[in-house]
Amino acid sequence: MRSLPGLALPAALVLALVTPALPAAGEGPETSANLAAAATIRRIYDEALTSRAAYQNLTELVNRYPGRLSGSQHLTGAIDWAAATLRKLPLDRVATQPVMVPHWERGEPEAVSLAGPNGPVQLAAAALGGTIATPEGGISAEVVTVHTEAELNQLGAAGLRGKIVFIDAPMNPKTVTTGTAYGEAGWSRNRGPGLAARYGAVAALTRSLTLAQDDIPHTGNTSFAPGQPKLPAAALSWIAADRLAQALTANSHTQVTVALHGHWLPDAAAANLIGEIRGSEHPDQIILVGGHLDSWDIAPGANDDGAGVVQSIEVLRLFVATGIRPKHTLRCVLFVNEENGGRGGQAYAAQVRASGEKHLLAMETDNGSFQPRGFSLANINHDVGAKASRWLPLLAPYGIAFFADGSGGADVQPLAPLGIPVGELRPDSQLYFDYHHTRNDTLEHVNPRELALGAAALAAVTWLTDEQGL
Amino acid sequence: MRSLPGLALPAALVLALVTPALPAAGEGPETSANLAAAATIRRIYDEALTSRAAYQNLTELVNRYPGRLSGSQHLTGAIDWAAATLRKLPLDRVATQPVMVPHWERGEPEAVSLAGPNGPVQLAAAALGGTIATPEGGISAEVVTVHTEAELNQLGAAGLRGKIVFIDAPMNPKTVTTGTAYGEAGWSRNRGPGLAARYGAVAALTRSLTLAQDDIPHTGNTSFAPGQPKLPAAALSWIAADRLAQALTANSHTQVTVALHGHWLPDAAAANLIGEIRGSEHPDQIILVGGHLDSWDIAPGANDDGAGVVQSIEVLRLFVATGIRPKHTLRCVLFVNEENGGRGGQAYAAQVRASGEKHLLAMETDNGSFQPRGFSLANINHDVGAKASRWLPLLAPYGIAFFADGSGGADVQPLAPLGIPVGELRPDSQLYFDYHHTRNDTLEHVNPRELALGAAALAAVTWLTDEQGL
Repeated sequence: MRSLPGLALPAALVLALVTPALPAAGEGPETSANLAAAATIRRIYDEALTSRAAYQNLTELVNRYPGRLSGSQHLTGAIDWAAATLRKLPLDRVATQPVMVPHWERGEPEAVSLAGPNGPVQLAAAALGGTIATPEGGISAEVVTVHTEAELNQLGAAGLRGKIVFIDAPMNPKTVTTGTAYGEAGWSRNRGPGLAARYGAVAALTRSLTLAQDDIPHTGNTSFAPGQPKLPAAALSWIAADRLAQALTANSHTQVTVALHGHWLPDAAAANLIGEIRGSEHPDQIILVGGHLDSWDIAPGANDDGAGVVQSIEVLRLFVATGIRPKHTLRCVLFVNEENGGRGGQAYAAQVRASGEKHLLAMETDNGSFQPRGFSLANINHDVGAKASRWLPLLAPYGIAFFADGSGGADVQPLAPLGIPVGELRPDSQLYFDYHHTRNDTLEHVNPRELALGAAALAAVTWLTDEQGL
Repeated sequence: MRSLPGLALPAALVLALVTPALPAAGEGPETSANLAAAATIRRIYDEALTSRAAYQNLTELVNRYPGRLSGSQHLTGAIDWAAATLRKLPLDRVATQPVMVPHWERGEPEAVSLAGPNGPVQLAAAALGGTIATPEGGISAEVVTVHTEAELNQLGAAGLRGKIVFIDAPMNPKTVTTGTAYGEAGWSRNRGPGLAARYGAVAALTRSLTLAQDDIPHTGNTSFAPGQPKLPAAALSWIAADRLAQALTANSHTQVTVALHGHWLPDAAAANLIGEIRGSEHPDQIILVGGHLDSWDIAPGANDDGAGVVQSIEVLRLFVATGIRPKHTLRCVLFVNEENGGRGGQAYAAQVRASGEKHLLAMETDNGSFQPRGFSLANINHDVGAKASRWLPLLAPYGIAFFADGSGGADVQPLAPLGIPVGELRPDSQLYFDYHHTRNDTLEHVNPRELALGAAALAAVTWLTDEQGL
């Protein structure tokens, strides 16, 4: 691309053409109140786009504390780092909420191999969180492939006892929003191994939940119902899953050997981190922005959810740096144990229920650092997405195109039953599951400007909620 | 992120909330014609999202023919590759349009260094296209810094004669759409060196046109007016430009040595590539989609504009693969010499003017492979962007949010004076200038799904134009 005169239009101009004007009753976009709001939002974005603070914080967090799984020393280090980072802003209050978290460890690296004419062929695999170890030396058995949950149930104990089950349920590439495809294929990792265990399978292999056709396995949590049998289970990379499928097509009696070392330890001490700017008029009323500090053990956790952590911190820093004093208390909450238990989000909601603390809005950012596009919002009492849509003309110049009536993320969703509006930032979804829960979730897949645009979008909605209510 | 029930909404649902409904007269989104259109567009996207054809083509083009500058053997190889690729589809017609192109070569790698107390410090630099060589051994001189074109003109010959001019005009980070910031800072590379030469400067250094704060220099073209003096000029990486600025702040007499080897050769033979699906009803009326085959010598050219080349080919393949027979002729044009002359685009427009060929629309894709967001459209006779906006309800499920009245890209813009509607695909802009015109413009910065979504968006608009006119 060369620069032609008029080649590039300002985003404001472009988006003005397509942005629905949904002003609040009696307030159109041209009122002086809206002009003042536009100017404040511009200040927030200017600060975000000219500061490297969020990216520098992410660099520190990811380089010092990769693999921040619940129970790990790196999670403890990350909690301490976050507390020190919040204190430096400075804020009116920094506090911790102690939370006991489950403690699962992968143990020695997993090994999955395929018997071949020239000896075993290694398959790239990652044990799933919550799974148990194989006996010393691994388990060797024939493989039964299933593609759907119905197929798994249909085979039942007669078809699965003593076998290794290969749950080959890829994410649907035709689905444009990858989060939807992830949700639809999620049973294969979430429930599939537990079902296979109940039918007497000796191990389970899943296809990684990704659309990236590479050799990187994606871990993630799997659940075994209380009192039901467990088994060793691992996710294969896309390429390894294809290789296994091909081998089984060629010879349905192909033997696979699985050696996993997952094990549980006693619950460990951890804590949610809380940082606050005290509201000037309604200090007892809270607007919350949060992300989660923990990550999978094998993942540096840059996008999941280092990005959300530093964006949540950045929202407070943007208020401090621009000198915008909020009327309500702005609270950043950095949750623990989102990945394999949700204890941080549950503990926070329990505290709110017990204390009766009033929250105007609780927003989460846990969908990666990519270009922000909109927000999902949910409230049990009314369509809060439609209400927030009156702000679109103010946010469209920055690429924010929707407030959808949807849900919050996993950490703020437990606040929804209390009647609190919950929401989450919705960035572009194409790249997130390429790196999700892998060793590839690295800093190089975070663009500093996209990260900053996400933080600014959260700060703008925070400020609009503070000024105008939701 | 975990999968929560209802966490991820289908994009269709999300965007339906914010998409302005702008149906054509008498046709709302619910008519059977629109339902049929929605089904056809879904077929196009399904094919694009389940095929790897575009990404495989890009892999071949970039791996075999990186550095496809006009006059190079790699451009010749790329032209032959493109002809073979188009013939394989198969198409109704594949043809070449011979074009003579300017032939500039960088010569030996450039060297720019800063005199320091411990010897010279190398600065990462890339000679600008069109510049001349320094004398053997390089040029050493003191440096004068300018930040604006006005400042450059104000200093004039009195301030610049015998000096090396450092044109330090960074892209504005506050500008959300990076293409706009690129255009605004473009004078520093496009006109700055020529101006400096007229004022008697001995060499020019510019700050790379990027927002990436790294040590990778970005080349690009600079122009010297006919009959006016030329000089050696190079772009410094962001880090090198900062280093030079700091050195000059510490000691304004700091000497810099510049050794460049750019030189011109006689014009070379090249060709635009043309591939067609013949229209079933109006074969003499053309809808054009194109990108450019050439790239900068130092750049693999994955995003600029390998992506546009393979997307343009993919548009035709999507029609072939889905069996959708167009009424008008669909023409893919792969232009040459976009980067340093525009001869391909000019030759194509000259041929259209001479032959009187009727074009319904000429669209270009030359803004990278990133998530597509909308289109710029321009026509000298009417606001074609507003007219195309009636298609937004059909395209919103795929993330297309706007048709802006803007302009085409550099290759189709010469068709605009002929009254032909011209346009370009507008993907997300945050990452493009991180890699633009550098050795970092590699395949790893292209996501196969984003690439496919761009091709599908172009195909959908092509089909809508074919069916409904523009």
